[in-house]
Amino acid sequence: MPSSTKNSDPTTLHNPYFYQKPGQKDIWSLINETAAQAEQESGKSIVNLGQGFFSYNPPDFAIDAVNQALTKPQFNQYAHARGNPNLLKQVADHYSRSYGREVTPDQIQITTGANEGMFSIFFGFLTSGDEAIVFEPFFDQYIPNIEMTGAKVKYVEIKYPKKFDTGVVEGKDWEIDWEGLENSINEKTKIIVINTPHNPIGKVFTEEELERIGELAIKHNLILVSDEVYENLYYTPQFPRPANLKSLPELAERTLTVGSAGKSFAATGWRIGYIQGPVNLIKFVTAAHTRICFSTPAPLQQAVAIGFEQADKLNYFENTVKDYKKKYEIFTAVFDELGLPYTKADGGYFLLVNLSKVKISKDYKFPQAISDRGTLDFKLAYWLIKEIGVVGIPPTEFLIPENRLGND
Amino acid sequence: MPSSTKNSDPTTLHNPYFYQKPGQKDIWSLINETAAQAEQESGKSIVNLGQGFFSYNPPDFAIDAVNQALTKPQFNQYAHARGNPNLLKQVADHYSRSYGREVTPDQIQITTGANEGMFSIFFGFLTSGDEAIVFEPFFDQYIPNIEMTGAKVKYVEIKYPKKFDTGVVEGKDWEIDWEGLENSINEKTKIIVINTPHNPIGKVFTEEELERIGELAIKHNLILVSDEVYENLYYTPQFPRPANLKSLPELAERTLTVGSAGKSFAATGWRIGYIQGPVNLIKFVTAAHTRICFSTPAPLQQAVAIGFEQADKLNYFENTVKDYKKKYEIFTAVFDELGLPYTKADGGYFLLVNLSKVKISKDYKFPQAISDRGTLDFKLAYWLIKEIGVVGIPPTEFLIPENRLGND
Repeated sequence: MPSSTKNSDPTTLHNPYFYQKPGQKDIWSLINETAAQAEQESGKSIVNLGQGFFSYNPPDFAIDAVNQALTKPQFNQYAHARGNPNLLKQVADHYSRSYGREVTPDQIQITTGANEGMFSIFFGFLTSGDEAIVFEPFFDQYIPNIEMTGAKVKYVEIKYPKKFDTGVVEGKDWEIDWEGLENSINEKTKIIVINTPHNPIGKVFTEEELERIGELAIKHNLILVSDEVYENLYYTPQFPRPANLKSLPELAERTLTVGSAGKSFAATGWRIGYIQGPVNLIKFVTAAHTRICFSTPAPLQQAVAIGFEQADKLNYFENTVKDYKKKYEIFTAVFDELGLPYTKADGGYFLLVNLSKVKISKDYKFPQAISDRGTLDFKLAYWLIKEIGVVGIPPTEFLIPENRLGND
Repeated sequence: MPSSTKNSDPTTLHNPYFYQKPGQKDIWSLINETAAQAEQESGKSIVNLGQGFFSYNPPDFAIDAVNQALTKPQFNQYAHARGNPNLLKQVADHYSRSYGREVTPDQIQITTGANEGMFSIFFGFLTSGDEAIVFEPFFDQYIPNIEMTGAKVKYVEIKYPKKFDTGVVEGKDWEIDWEGLENSINEKTKIIVINTPHNPIGKVFTEEELERIGELAIKHNLILVSDEVYENLYYTPQFPRPANLKSLPELAERTLTVGSAGKSFAATGWRIGYIQGPVNLIKFVTAAHTRICFSTPAPLQQAVAIGFEQADKLNYFENTVKDYKKKYEIFTAVFDELGLPYTKADGGYFLLVNLSKVKISKDYKFPQAISDRGTLDFKLAYWLIKEIGVVGIPPTEFLIPENRLGND
């Protein structure tokens, strides 16, 4: 090959998928850096309610379990690609308790965080030419995680409830576009992704909704991927799960359920996730995970195994829900008083607030990076940080660009 | 879509890339399970020299550093996608010392093990239609890690030295097929992958070899990926590195160097890797890593940061090399005595032994899974486990199928 046919700058060799508009930062960097700058300039501390991480430590029993694990060579060296056998057993027991039926360790795959778990599922099943259905709004990582396999994302709306313009709504008011869902399924479709409790709406999918989605999955031979990383944080009397649906038990045969020790034990930095599903499907997740990460951090796996055991004994998850309910009441009382509508969450730690009543002066100065986004919520987020000292996340980032609200 | 055009078994939806021959286990499972079974049957303990993990703990200073990190909320929650700033600085300092020139933290990306690091590099640059060159024998994970991006692998031989049939050889006796290398480069080529010290040969690439590879990379505008996970374990007076090549300093502008805290601190289960390269290339590795794993385990990152600091103070890497040299001498003396040729390793913890002199009785019974591989080395590995109680890895697994030796 004559070298003259190519230039000599290796930067030009990058995967075009990762081309970023020069200067356009990802949302997390933009918001967090804005907050850090505001903190420095004002000298006041900013309350960060944006990114989903905890300002406190995991419970002592989990920390102690890491310290214990570190004393044994086996927990400092490669774990088995499918996971530490103790953790596989504990996660299986955890699902057995929750589903009220026996789940065995061979139905579990441990992953390096739920994010890499979703990525391993997508790679285990999707390839170029395939399609996966994602409900919008969506957790932003799903999209590149699907597209990196070569597959295409089809979007189906969870419809904005009109009455949210003026008053408080609930999860069930956000309804699935059923016609859109049926129309989006074709012979290329392999996967439907749901997220319950849903980030950022806080909606827990009802039994009826799961049944209707499940019937479509069965009819068209699709896999249902259920991202349930907030499984231990729901405020509804029941938490319906597709892998345990009384009215449609055969849905379990095609459901892959995703969980997160980081969310469950306030340890988002540990990167331990898990997947539950039928043995015949789990083996392809294992195959993908083995190539992506090879194995998941061994001492932290062992600690989470002990963590699950202790959590069951100490009613840790039940107590956490009680704590969150209290915090949630304090928090929503603020918006009740201000008369700002919000979605009363069924689960998770989200509060989606309608701030359209907040009027910012026309003369208010925004940095270029904020104005360039072209949506009102980025301006509101900036104003909240600077004037109130509170960080929130602009929710239009969870929509495809054509569905984002404009400035007016 | 009429459901009759598809069957109703969700197993059939898997990514065809992950189809495995029924019953054919991956090499690590096959060998480790054979060893475990032999241990149980014989009641004697088996010495596992196969998989590259340690039978002892990481150094105390590293363990203590994890315990310390766990006490602080920030080290239990999400780390920055590029890495913990303390670790970025320590890894940069580590490279600054090794290269003898200033390396800054913005030239570093922390990854969830070197494996995910390689995968992030490949995804950052390769896509469908691209090609990457890999030297054969190769570390087995490179191949799926490249192919999962949609790119194709081109193989170039490191040639088996004829004199290895009868006597001990050295790393430099394993010579690159230079003609094959030049011929394999075309307009689709984006990356050349090297591995030094090389797994499983133990070869450290010489300055002359690196220069010649580097000149080709520059001429054709390619990226050089240098897997140097055994960087702290070399027995040669110098360890030439492409990112620091005196005779070709401009090669650093297109080199991505991969390192492993797991290998460096005897903690393979911690899954902390790192990549050093020019800022303009690192940013695409960061983009891919952010989507694959989002971030790397926070408490273990902080511990490795402290680990590097302590290792420098305590001359830990130098002392480790001294220990390994002694172990290596004891080990090779066995083969000198038996008159079995081996490759005297320049680095790493490999010993490639030519066992063709070992004659196994024709009546010896092998399990189907071993005979099915169709190569002599799988039979030798089985025999070694059962009769001698030592686990080794059959090296044909590091070759493409058409280059594997037959049974005779």
